[in-house]
This record gives sequence, structure tokens and C-alpha cells, in this order.
Amino acid sequence: MSDKLIDVVAGGLQLVDLGRQLRVGMPQSPNHPQFWHTLPRRHGDVIRADGGSAANDMITTGTHVGTHIDALAHVSQDGKLFGGADAGASCLGGKYVEHGVHTIAPMIRRGILLDVPGYLGLPDLEGGYEITVADLQGTLQKQGTALESGDVALIRSGWGKKFAEGTAYVGGASGVPGISEDGATWLASQGIHAAGADTIAFERLAPGGGHAQLPAHRVFLVENGIYIVEALDLEELAAKAIHEFTFVLVPLNIFGATGSPVRPLAVVPA
Amino acid sequence: MSDKLIDVVAGGLQLVDLGRQLRVGMPQSPNHPQFWHTLPRRHGDVIRADGGSAANDMITTGTHVGTHIDALAHVSQDGKLFGGADAGASCLGGKYVEHGVHTIAPMIRRGILLDVPGYLGLPDLEGGYEITVADLQGTLQKQGTALESGDVALIRSGWGKKFAEGTAYVGGASGVPGISEDGATWLASQGIHAAGADTIAFERLAPGGGHAQLPAHRVFLVENGIYIVEALDLEELAAKAIHEFTFVLVPLNIFGATGSPVRPLAVVPA
Amino acid sequence: MSDKLIDVVAGGLQLVDLGRQLRVGMPQSPNHPQFWHTLPRRHGDVIRADGGSAANDMITTGTHVGTHIDALAHVSQDGKLFGGADAGASCLGGKYVEHGVHTIAPMIRRGILLDVPGYLGLPDLEGGYEITVADLQGTLQKQGTALESGDVALIRSGWGKKFAEGTAYVGGASGVPGISEDGATWLASQGIHAAGADTIAFERLAPGGGHAQLPAHRVFLVENGIYIVEALDLEELAAKAIHEFTFVLVPLNIFGATGSPVRPLAVVPA
Amino acid sequence: MSDKLIDVVAGGLQLVDLGRQLRVGMPQSPNHPQFWHTLPRRHGDVIRADGGSAANDMITTGTHVGTHIDALAHVSQDGKLFGGADAGASCLGGKYVEHGVHTIAPMIRRGILLDVPGYLGLPDLEGGYEITVADLQGTLQKQGTALESGDVALIRSGWGKKFAEGTAYVGGASGVPGISEDGATWLASQGIHAAGADTIAFERLAPGGGHAQLPAHRVFLVENGIYIVEALDLEELAAKAIHEFTFVLVPLNIFGATGSPVRPLAVVPA
Repeated sequence: MSDKLIDVVAGGLQLVDLGRQLRVGMPQSPNHPQFWHTLPRRHGDVIRADGGSAANDMITTGTHVGTHIDALAHVSQDGKLFGGADAGASCLGGKYVEHGVHTIAPMIRRGILLDVPGYLGLPDLEGGYEITVADLQGTLQKQGTALESGDVALIRSGWGKKFAEGTAYVGGASGVPGISEDGATWLASQGIHAAGADTIAFERLAPGGGHAQLPAHRVFLVENGIYIVEALDLEELAAKAIHEFTFVLVPLNIFGATGSPVRPLAVVPA
Repeated sequence: MSDKLIDVVAGGLQLVDLGRQLRVGMPQSPNHPQFWHTLPRRHGDVIRADGGSAANDMITTGTHVGTHIDALAHVSQDGKLFGGADAGASCLGGKYVEHGVHTIAPMIRRGILLDVPGYLGLPDLEGGYEITVADLQGTLQKQGTALESGDVALIRSGWGKKFAEGTAYVGGASGVPGISEDGATWLASQGIHAAGADTIAFERLAPGGGHAQLPAHRVFLVENGIYIVEALDLEELAAKAIHEFTFVLVPLNIFGATGSPVRPLAVVPA
Repeated sequence: MSDKLIDVVAGGLQLVDLGRQLRVGMPQSPNHPQFWHTLPRRHGDVIRADGGSAANDMITTGTHVGTHIDALAHVSQDGKLFGGADAGASCLGGKYVEHGVHTIAPMIRRGILLDVPGYLGLPDLEGGYEITVADLQGTLQKQGTALESGDVALIRSGWGKKFAEGTAYVGGASGVPGISEDGATWLASQGIHAAGADTIAFERLAPGGGHAQLPAHRVFLVENGIYIVEALDLEELAAKAIHEFTFVLVPLNIFGATGSPVRPLAVVPA
Repeated sequence: MSDKLIDVVAGGLQLVDLGRQLRVGMPQSPNHPQFWHTLPRRHGDVIRADGGSAANDMITTGTHVGTHIDALAHVSQDGKLFGGADAGASCLGGKYVEHGVHTIAPMIRRGILLDVPGYLGLPDLEGGYEITVADLQGTLQKQGTALESGDVALIRSGWGKKFAEGTAYVGGASGVPGISEDGATWLASQGIHAAGADTIAFERLAPGGGHAQLPAHRVFLVENGIYIVEALDLEELAAKAIHEFTFVLVPLNIFGATGSPVRPLAVVPA
């Protein structure tokens, strides 16, 4: 009675974890509330008559920390969200009713890794390097992968290796590599559903420039309704040369929020 | 170049969302920090020179609120966690290094719905009703489904309809229907990987009894290493009579936590 | 070289604590984020080489929980704050720059207790009872106390005894005793600087009425610039018949907030 | 009917605010949860039928951030708190029942400013400078102030000027000036009730040394039961040459916490 999907699952799957572990002290943008986890109750604090005990947690966090997805409501341009929605009126009672993260459908879709340093023959890209349209096209060609409408495009810069270093990953002084307006425009023209990268702000940041300009966010979130996933771990995927896979991403269904922590998976038959 | 999984995905999937929306004020156990979401920055608060603006969020929450998974570290018995790990020593530096939620592998597995009121010919079960082993076996037989080792078993009581009512869902005075020690022992003997239910504490709560005794938690988490998922929404699944499916659950990778909010999916070819 | 104040202090003071202890689970309005305290680090979690260890805390809370003060920015009427400030424009970058709690100067002022049940010869007032202007005047006369400009008036209803009972203190079904528009108008005409009460919302709440109408808040915060202190513990003060005292209240200096938890003192020479 | 204290208050008081404003982004130790403030509800989000509206706040914070007081439970040495209390057993159910911040009585006491750079003829002390016993004694002599049993001693290094600079105030690389074991031992011998400073960790930190050794904390909190106040603003007091005053400090009454944010005052007749 099992279906085709159950049959494939029964055949064995390899799950590559694309999410960062959520740890107190991990690098994050100072614009967002810090991730913090603590145990209000530990075993032994309160013991029931039968010898049982339950421990529990408290979390405080921004939604744009660790690996996370940006809802369309995250960014506005000239007072408008995607589709021309008024950025002020979209927020009702303190919730982005329009384009909040609760409006993102869970994704099980084809994903494509664009291993740009792999294409360029570099271990990783330098801070501030802009990934060009030619880089994107060359990478896809070398990999033998083609983007199709509805795909999720994950762009590897190699910068993700710095996640364990803390502040270096944020890249304030050095800048951060990534696509910019041109790359975003070209990717949008391919009809992708979502894009991700292994950096904190997805797109290129100029050395010393911080987040003063984020044109790829505008192109994707405001102009094209394409979701952005940040702070991915793409190293294992690249090391295993898995360029095409099934991408699984399930945002938390937080009513009215502008983003959600996520733990995306790249899945291939084992 | 696509693989078998991509082919199935390309054929179209139906995703049934088993998670509750995270909303301020939703019912939850008073033992856990309340879920709260707020927008520190709204559009218009800070506008960049180029006319762009970003809104963001702050979340405070327990991990055992909304739809969530219990890590094995959540419950101890007589000072021991699963496998005999010392409940005190398993917590290093304020984190459950042993059996924390970061040790739960993402799940893409066969799932089985046990629609118990469907079997019994009732709209839903009453507060305090204990789902017996005979109920579980009868339900599986009527549905034509059989549990196999590694499956995820989702037990529907119909109590989930009360989620929108708030306090009634918690069931302090009324009690809550569910399996108890016998049901848990039998399910464990079937080799299941995880179990879930549409109630706040997964197992039967006696009227007025609160959480004073949680034998199914002990059987699953401490004695058998079987994960528990709580506060699922199983109504759509039951209404569509989807009893067998691919179950997708990806916990947040929170280092050392005893649980995580999750948004599980039941997936079938469209 | 000591001054007159130091001399009085050296003579000995009696400090009567008017604040409630902040405890997880204490009664509070569901409109505000719940108070929660937890210990991320306990002794023994991290021990320094020299054998020392530090424990620490994490707090999450609304500002209108426990004993607290309302800043003028807390309430608006028809889009205006006190002095006609625009309620929207007063919030800059997500902070009430105008009339936020950071604008309240610490108070060391004369305080007057109005022990209304003491005047009426009752143990305490019933839910929904409106304290009238005649009650206020009669109380002051019986006590031999007169309000002067700049004073702080603390109105005891006796309802504070219910704080330990939890939900009963919130008074949803029962209502809560207190002054209403008339009492507030008369108190404002006396030139008081601030007013307080032993109830959760300061003013009278009708049985079953909740917070749908709060006319005394409007009279004080919006029309007269008089601060409101809520959830005071006035029992010890009444039991000791201390009707006149030095009132000490120091709000946390939270930039842009609408309120602050406080622990006010009534001080008299020992 | 007024008392001596009311008479002094009526004569007019000067209140010097010794607390830092609590602002998102202010410098703090990375060991403690970050201070964060946000407005879940702003005016206009929810408007009552009568045209009224209430805005409110959510705060997340450590207790050792901004100007704050350390409870005795904050530090242990060799597993013991002050008075030999067992550091493990003092924590019951996740609260420091013994020596928590709820056990600190509000303070209205004589305070003495020790303006060390004023004595040394320097604008301020350098990072890593150890304030010696001779410095303390010389400062008191030059000022014509003498410590008495029960006093609160506030030690100015001038480092507080860096609070507005952010990271520089934390002093990781530079170290921070302050007393160390010798100064603490001598101050304890004078019978002081509490001590404070204008730095983040109260005592001297060696350049690059961080918080690896905190001997003055041990001497005060563990061996002598003397409270410590950190991150004070002592600049106005020094500029006005107010060396003797009435010190007012009221910790939040947080059950079981190891510290509390505070806003202390130095008060003198106007």
C-alpha cells in the first residue's frame, strides 16, 4: 500500500545538514537580538513522587540568527513590500499579516548548489568579491547543472568556513563575498523559488560597508518574491560534489514574523 | 542527471502540515516559558539612504510549546537518562551534552496515523480516556496499516480540535485522552523510532491529575530512546484518510536543549 | 561634615517595602509578556583554575508586571499622548523617545496612604467597588492627612491580599475595586505627582469588564501627566498605620520604554 | 505631623543619578545575556472603542548588565558561598534561595566617593592599573572623608567615561583599572556594607586577562558578605566634588537571582 515516495525513502536516503548549530556566542549580526539558550529546570530541581523529573529550556532569539530564512515582509523599498503592499499597513497589531513568515509554504523542491570557488579553482572567495553573472553561468556549466523554474539555488562562496571563527564571519572590515544586483537579477530571471548562501547577509558586502546597501535583497524580496536563506553550511555538500538534490526547508510557522531559524536539508538517495 | 527522489518530487507532492501556528496566547503548559513574538524594528523605524528598510523580530519561548519534540534529555527516572546516563553529569556547563535535542537526526521516515476515534466510531475521545493496546491494534487492523521497525506512529485522539479554545486544550480539570504505560510498552515493542499525538502532553492525563505521573514518557524517553512529538495537528490527515505517509521532521539544532519547536509534515505523492 | 539628611539617616530609618517579589508564576495581565527568570550558569558549570565560579541569570519580562510604574507614553487617547504629543511620532526607531520611562525622574517625595477600607471599617473592598471622591476625602479626614501639591497618593483597597492567590488577583470575573474617572479627576486637582494602588490595573474594573475602559489612566497619564504605580503591597503600611511617609521610587532608566518594574519604599524615622 | 525626614525632603534635595541608561547595544560582558528592549504593542496597534490605546514592552536581559548589584550568591569559591553555604545546595529548584538578590535589603546609607584620579592628579586611570591601599587611604585623607562601619564605598577610576565608546569600556585588551585583593581586604576591614566602581567588573583586570581571576569578588562576596555594584556613573559626583552623601539603592526583588539591574542615587540637601 506504500507509495512511490515511501519506496524511495525505504531504499535509503543521505541527508546532508545545511544548518548551523544554534549555540550561545555564535556569530550574528548586531542588528538582531542575540540567540540565548538556558535551562530553567534541570534534572533534580523538581522530582516527582515516582522518581521522575523533567528538564526544560528557555530560548531568546532574533529570527535572523543562525541559519534562517527571510520572509518577504523582512525588506521594504520606498515604503512598499512585494507586490506593492504598503509596508505600514501590512503590519496589523504588531504582526506582519501580509508576507510574514507564516505565509511561506514548506519546501520540498529541487535544489542546485553553485560551487563558485569550485568553478574558479579557489579554496574560497575573498571578502568583498562580487560573484558575477559570468561566474554563476560558468559554475552551472562546469557542474553540468541547469537551473529550472521553481528550483532553489544555493551559492557557495567558501566563506562559511569562517563561521567557527566568530567575528571574522560577520566580515565588517573585510567585506563578504556574494552576488549583488546583477547576479540577483539574472537568478530571478531563471524563475528560482528561493536562494541561499553560506554568508551572514547572503549578498556581497563591500569592505567596511556593512549593511548600508543590500540590492540583492531588494531584487529578491521586494521585486520578485524570492525567499533568501542565510548562513547555510555548504561545505559538506561541496566536498561530496552533490550539485543537484532535493531541498527540504520547513520554516517555523510564526504568525507575523519577518523570518525564522531553519535547518534545511539536501537529500539524495543513499 | 536527476535522481529517483527528484523524479518523485517532480511528479508533485501533497504536503500536509502537522504543526500548530506559533501565536502569542496559544495554549501551553504553565511549566514552560511562554511563547512571545514581537517586532523590535518595523518598516519605517530606520530607513537607509537608498529608501530600503528592514523589519525584524524577537522571540522568547520555551522549547516545549506549540508543536514540539522531546529530546531524550527531557526526562529522567531515578537520576538516570536513557542508556543509564547520569542525569546530573549529562549536563555540562548548562547544556545537556548527552541526549540533547542536537543529537536527534532529522527524520524522513515512514509515518503511520492511528486514527483511534475513527476506529471507535467517535468524533473524538473524552478527557482522561486511556487508549488501550486493543484500541491501537484495532485501529491498525481497521486501517490496513502495520507498524514496522523505524516507523513514526502518530496517535490521533481528536483532542486537537480544542487547540483553538485555549485553556480547554490543556485539560487540567477534564483530563486528556491518550495512551499510558501499556500502550507505550506495546508501541515500543514494535520498534518505532518516534511517536506523536495531538495533545499537549502526548499521553493520558487523569482528570485533575495534571502532570503528576507521565509513565509513557518514562517508557519512551528513558527506557527505549523513542522520541515524543506533542501538540500535533492531525485533523487534516484524518479527514483525508491518509494513514500511511512519509514523515518529515527537522528539529532545530539547539546545542544542549531538551526539546525543540518543530513543524512536521506528512508527505504523499499528489 | 555630614549633612542634615545623613544625620537623619544616622538616626535610623524604617524602610517599608511596597514592592511585590518577582517570581515566576505570579499573577499578571495576559496582555504583557510573562515574567520569567532562569539561571543560565550555576555554580559548578564553569570553574576557574583558582576554584572560583560565577552563577548568572536571564530575565524575560514585560515592564507592566509585578509592582511597576506607567510612563506617560503607556497610554494614548485619540492618537495623542500627554501634552498633545502625537502618539505615532513619539516613537522613533522603536523607542518612545517622548514620554518614555527614561523621562521619569527618580522620586524622593512625601507620600500619603489612603487606607480606604480602614476608613470604611471594612477588611477590604469588593471586586468592582468604585472608590468615590467622598471615600477619598473621608479617608484623608479620618487619617488627619491632607494632600499637597507634589505628593504621591497611594490608595489601598485591600485587594492586594489576593496577590498570593494568583488568578483571583487579576479579577477578570469579579472585577477589581478602585477609583474611576471622578476619583482621578479630584486627585489630579490636588496636584499630586503620582498615584499608586494595590491592584493590577490601578483603577476600578467592572466585573467581567476586563481592561475595556480605563478612564483613570486617561485622566492621569494623558490629561495630567501624573504617573501611575500598580500592584503595590500596602498591607504592612496599613497594619502599622503609617499614613504619611517619604516615598522613594527609582524606575529603571530604560530608554524608550512605556513602564518599568519598581520596588518603591515608604520610609520613616525608626 | 510630618517627621524629620519629611522635613529634610521638603527643604529640597539634589539627586545625582549613578546609573547608566539601559539601551540596546550598550557595552556589557559577553558572559551575560544581552539587554534587549522592544515594543510588542505600539499606539495604534490595538485601539479601544473609546479611542484609547496602550503601548507596552518586552525586556530580555541578564542581571549583570548595565549598572547592577551582585548578590552574594553570584560567586563561589571551592564550592562554597558566603558563610560556608554549599554552592550546590543553595540553589533549590533553579533559584538561589540562599544569598539570592531577594535577600539584599534596600539601602539608604551613608556613601563615600573615593575619587582616586582626583587624588592622583590624573584625568583618569589607565587600563590594568591597580588601585593600592595607599591610593585608597591617600584619597580619603585628601578628601577629608573617613570610612565608617556600614558605609558604601564608591571607587572612581575615571574609566566610566569610556561607557559611551562601547567595546573599549569592556577593556579586554587594555585591561581595566581598579582595586584588587589588597584593596578589597583593606576596605573589608573598614566594615563597609557595599562597594561600587565605575567599571564593568568592579576590580582590576590585567591587560588581556579578562575575567580569569577576580580576587576582590572573592574577598567581598564570599569571605565578607559585602555587596558589589558595577558600571556606576561617577562622573557627575566627582565633577561636583560630592564625596559624602546619602546612598540609595533598591535592587529588584527577584527571587533566587544572582544580581539585579539597579539605578543608585547619591542624595544631598539642595
